[in-house]
Order: sequence, then C-alpha cells, then structure tokens
Amino acid sequence: MTREVATLEWIGDVDGNLRILDQTRLPREVVFRECRDERAVWEAIKTLQVRGAPAIGIAAAYGLCLGMKLAPNDERGFFQRLEEVTSYLASSRPTAVNLFWALDRMRRRADTLRGQPPEVIRKALLKEARAIHEEDRALCHAIGRWGESLIEDGSGVLTHCNAGGLATAEYGTALAVIYEAVAKGKRIHVYADETRPLLQGARLTAWELKAHGVPVTLICDNTAAEVMKEGKVQAVIVGADRIAANGDTANKIGTYGLAVLARYHRIPFYVAAPSSTFDLQLPHGGLIPIEQRDPQEVTCPFGIPIAPEGVDVYNPAFDVTPAELVTAIICEKGVIRPVNSDTIAAVLVGAADNFQGPQAALKSSANG
Amino acid sequence: MTREVATLEWIGDVDGNLRILDQTRLPREVVFRECRDERAVWEAIKTLQVRGAPAIGIAAAYGLCLGMKLAPNDERGFFQRLEEVTSYLASSRPTAVNLFWALDRMRRRADTLRGQPPEVIRKALLKEARAIHEEDRALCHAIGRWGESLIEDGSGVLTHCNAGGLATAEYGTALAVIYEAVAKGKRIHVYADETRPLLQGARLTAWELKAHGVPVTLICDNTAAEVMKEGKVQAVIVGADRIAANGDTANKIGTYGLAVLARYHRIPFYVAAPSSTFDLQLPHGGLIPIEQRDPQEVTCPFGIPIAPEGVDVYNPAFDVTPAELVTAIICEKGVIRPVNSDTIAAVLVGAADNFQGPQAALKSSANG
Repeated sequence: MTREVATLEWIGDVDGNLRILDQTRLPREVVFRECRDERAVWEAIKTLQVRGAPAIGIAAAYGLCLGMKLAPNDERGFFQRLEEVTSYLASSRPTAVNLFWALDRMRRRADTLRGQPPEVIRKALLKEARAIHEEDRALCHAIGRWGESLIEDGSGVLTHCNAGGLATAEYGTALAVIYEAVAKGKRIHVYADETRPLLQGARLTAWELKAHGVPVTLICDNTAAEVMKEGKVQAVIVGADRIAANGDTANKIGTYGLAVLARYHRIPFYVAAPSSTFDLQLPHGGLIPIEQRDPQEVTCPFGIPIAPEGVDVYNPAFDVTPAELVTAIICEKGVIRPVNSDTIAAVLVGAADNFQGPQAALKSSANG
Repeated sequence: MTREVATLEWIGDVDGNLRILDQTRLPREVVFRECRDERAVWEAIKTLQVRGAPAIGIAAAYGLCLGMKLAPNDERGFFQRLEEVTSYLASSRPTAVNLFWALDRMRRRADTLRGQPPEVIRKALLKEARAIHEEDRALCHAIGRWGESLIEDGSGVLTHCNAGGLATAEYGTALAVIYEAVAKGKRIHVYADETRPLLQGARLTAWELKAHGVPVTLICDNTAAEVMKEGKVQAVIVGADRIAANGDTANKIGTYGLAVLARYHRIPFYVAAPSSTFDLQLPHGGLIPIEQRDPQEVTCPFGIPIAPEGVDVYNPAFDVTPAELVTAIICEKGVIRPVNSDTIAAVLVGAADNFQGPQAALKSSANG
C-alpha cells in the first residue's frame, strides 16, 4: 500500500502504539485501529483485521513491543514476561510461519542483550521490529523484480486471496510481481478469485489493484477453471503462508485446486514469498498445521444466514500444494526452479550459482 | 421435494394458477408465489425463484397455459398468441434446453388440435403440462434407480449447485441417485459445494438433504480439491442444463473445474439428467449458449457490497464439461458409459443392448 494507507504503522517511540488498517472493513470503509497492548494485536491477527503471512509477522513483532511496556524491571521478570507475551502472540494463528519467525527473531535479539537495563532492551526490540518492517518492504520489491521477468507482456494473470500490499509492509508478494511487470510497461490483466469465505480477493485484491490502476476482473472461485479454459490466463501467482523444505506450500484454501487446474491447462503456477515463509524444519507439507476456522464464516457471511441452521461445515483456512505442482517459487533471493529440497536449500543458503535467476527461468518458461 | 413443499403445483382447473416455491427465500423462509400469468412465470424463471433445468421446463409448460387464458377465440388469433407466449417464455433463460423442449412439446400438442375449439386446446395444453410434470417425477425416480448402483456403501459423494427435488418435480437428478442409494441402506455422506454466486448448494442442497436426513457437509467451492485430496470423496455427481450430442455437458459454473479435479484425483464424475436435457441438434458443447448474469450477483450478495464499486466482473451462469471428463451419464433410460455420440444415440433411441445398464457399469466402476 502507499504510505497514506499503510497496512501497519508504529506511532511514537518505545511507548508508542501500533496503528493497523482494519482489513475486515475494506473496501467499504478505511478504518484504522490503534493497538495499545498485545491483546489488541492478538485479536487483530485472530480476526483478520491484519492478515497475510508477512504482515502477521510484522504485527507480532510490534505486538511484543506493546506487551513489554508493562514488563517488570528485574531481568528475570522481564524475560519471563517476554516468554509469556511471545507464547501468547504465537497462539493467534497456527499456519503462517512468519509469525513464529518474527517472534523468534525478536526473542533472540533480546537474548543478546541480557544484562542490559530493560529500557535498553525495549528500545532494541522496537528497533528490531522496525527493521523487520523495513526489510519486508525491501523483500517485496526484490520479489517483484525477480518475478516480473516470468510474466510476459499481454498476459492474463490469475491470483487467489490477497498477497498484495495489504498482506505485507507494502507492495506485496504475488502482487509485487504484477506491480513490477506493470511498472516495466507490460500490459497485464489480473483475474482475482473472490476467495470465499472471507472474500479477500473481492474485498482487498480487487480494491488494491484498482487503486494502482491495474486492470482486474473479479471472478467467483469456481470460475477459475473456465477462465483458464478460455485461454485468458497465462500464469497463476499466489502467496504462501508456509513452505516446507521440499517446496510443499500452504496457502489460502483453494490454492491447491488452482494448482491442479493450472497443471491441467498447462499454465505455469508460481508462488511468491519471502524467505521467512520457508520452514526448513518441516521436510514436507503434510506436517504443516492447518487452521480450522469458525463454520459461521461459511454459513453466515455478514451476519446473514445462507445455510440451514446447524449444518455441518468443513472450513480449513489453508490447503497444501505439493511442490510438484509449483512451477517456481519467487523469493527475494531469486527464482527457485525446479522446486525441490536441493534448489530451495541452495537459494536460501545463498549458493547463488545453484539456482536460476530470472533470465535462466525465462528460457524455460513452459510449465514444468 | 415432498408433496407438502412442492417445487411447483398447478392449483385449480384450466383457469387455475401456478403456485411455485420461491427458492430465492430458502432456507430462511418457505414462501410460495402464485403465478397468474406468463409474465409472472417468466420473472420467476429469470430471477431463479424456480430453477433447475427440469423444473424450468415444467414451469414454462404451465406458463404457456397461463398465457393462453386470454387468448382470442378465433383460431388464427389463438395460434398467434400461442407463438407469442412461447417465444416470450423461451426468452427467460438461454442455457437449459428443457425450457425449449417443454415449450416445443406444448406447441406440437396444440398443433395436433388445429380446428378444435380454443377451450378444447387449452384443456389439452393443461393436460400436457400436467403430463410433463408427472413424467418428470417418474424420470427422476428412474434416474435414481439406475444411478444408485454406481455408488458404493460408505461413499463420500460431492455435488455442486442443486440437482435435487427443488430442481425437478420431486426427488431430483443427481440427488435422486443419492436418495435412492440411501433408501437401499447405503451409508452416504454428501459434500455440498456452496455454489457461488447464488449459493444454491448452501441454501437448497444442504437444506434438502438435511430435510431427508442425509448426512451432509457444506464446503466453499474452493475446498472441493482439498476434500478430494483427503480421500473423503469417492464420486462426484452433478445435474445438467444441456448435453450436446457428443456428451459435452453444460451445468452450473464450477462444474467443469470439478470434473478436472475429479480426473486428477481418479474419482468418477457422473452427470445425472433426464433425456429432455440432451440437445442432439448440437454436435458439441462449444455451441451451447452460456447465460451471462448480473455482476451484482457477485459483488453485492444480499445487497451487501463486497467489492470495490465498478469493478469488472465475469459471471457466466454455466460452464461446459467436455465428454472426455464425464465417466458416465445417468438418464432415465440407463447409464451411458463411455460417453460419446454413439453411446448417447444408442440409449436415447432405445437400442437397449448397446448401452451399459447399472450392472455392466458396476463391473467397470473405476474412473474412465
């Protein structure tokens, strides 16, 4: 997002607050919420006022700063409080690994300062949260630059949920690729899945793309196959909430089906995510915990009952796309292609000559 | 549906009216509407108060009876009026061929009575409409009997939109197969796609199945792939709005994607429809006219705006599934399998030894 409509913003100094854009109110209203303690941040994450794996990580880092405002002054009490707030914030949502990554990074920063006065540690924590925030902006722009070369001029690009500026510090992951391609003068038309049950595609992606002047057509999720069949889509790009060591990717429910449809229609399927989205501890995606959400999200959108009372509902927030269906993963360090444990490890540990940069990727841009 | 909640009911004699269950109000309210002229029926079809290809055909037949109440008494004026009302009703929705089939059958009945007094023809037309209605009940039960043998005890069955009693005179097409399997003592669990934008799966199928005591789990359309991946689904059954001579099948948007997903997961994909749904004039599905509906169905469900104002929307009501993805078509005359022009012609013209009955079909029940 532009700075005028920032997804997240820390207001003030070490005793400041976190201002978030309440995404549940978009696109009807632009409402900001001031989070003054960790509970407000937990609630904002849980209720998806702030959502998108990178943005959740940033919010959690700031949330820890809020939670440490009332920390005891003695070191033991301070670090005990740090553990409590960290565990509490980590309990907000289970799937996006950026949440745990950011909290872990914050905790490690504090650990390096043991022995220092609490005030010093708190200032260092805010600095770390701000760094995570700033770095995310840079990562998103890097993802955009790596990814745009995969998108040809005149392409139709299908995306799901919202992996845009609203899901990150700004610019986005999947949408960064589109923004960058457009910035390079390419004519791109986006097909945005509405993304039931919470309609992030209709409410957020369509809104964000329109605000950036990118041509967008909104479709119901079940229309994606038809749009592919009609030849309107040359690439699918989505974000990710957690990527296992082998490339299996957890993302918003519906992503796996899109990957199958893309394979059937011989359309490349790209995942765009910063390296903090990788969970190299997990050998494969079957081990990624999948959040189950309230059936009312499905049966009672906007408080209106659309199904018979008491009907059984299956409402997982995410699904896992096996690596074999992912043509390439675009992260800030480059394009990982083909997607497997070796190529991922090579890129993430920085063995730059072992992965394909965008030029190499372009040369074999048919779907693998 | 049971007779107590009849989808359609003619009340009275030749000067009577058509009572329809307003399906746009389900499941919150059971509201009946009395249609007193052809305009009310046109409106009911257009706005999906009555929907489902077979039910649309029945409604149109009765609608013609309503339109002929005010017909001139001279033969020329009478038949001119018949043409006008027929054309008018035919303009309500373009895709479901049962609409045109029923109107054509009514017109042909009238033609056989040229020279008779208008009163006699009107009585004969009502009798014909009642026959179409009664026959549909019988067809649905026959479809159920043929189809149930394809469903094994303990199966999960995924369906899309509503091809149940609400879409027909009673019992349904796709759901008839399920009702019949349950009646035979098989334990069946249905996964019902909610079916955006108008949510016929959530509002109608889940309601109807619950009313019949059939276990049902409601899912968002984009969750179907995950449910298949988890091994919860052993068969997909859907209805049809028009089937071309080669078996290409138009049905509710989202059906084509389900067929692709079913093929990927090696799950059989069945279409259940009466023979009036076949349009043998069309060699393939590319020639089936696809209705485009109001973008507001997508952007403004229940009057609540969920997308930025003025966003472009693609909202086709149907898609076409190629015959090669259809494991079998179940019609009242038997199970057509494999699906191609020859097997369809053989079954529809009655060469019973050229098609597989349910016993034969059972022997090769793996997905083709």
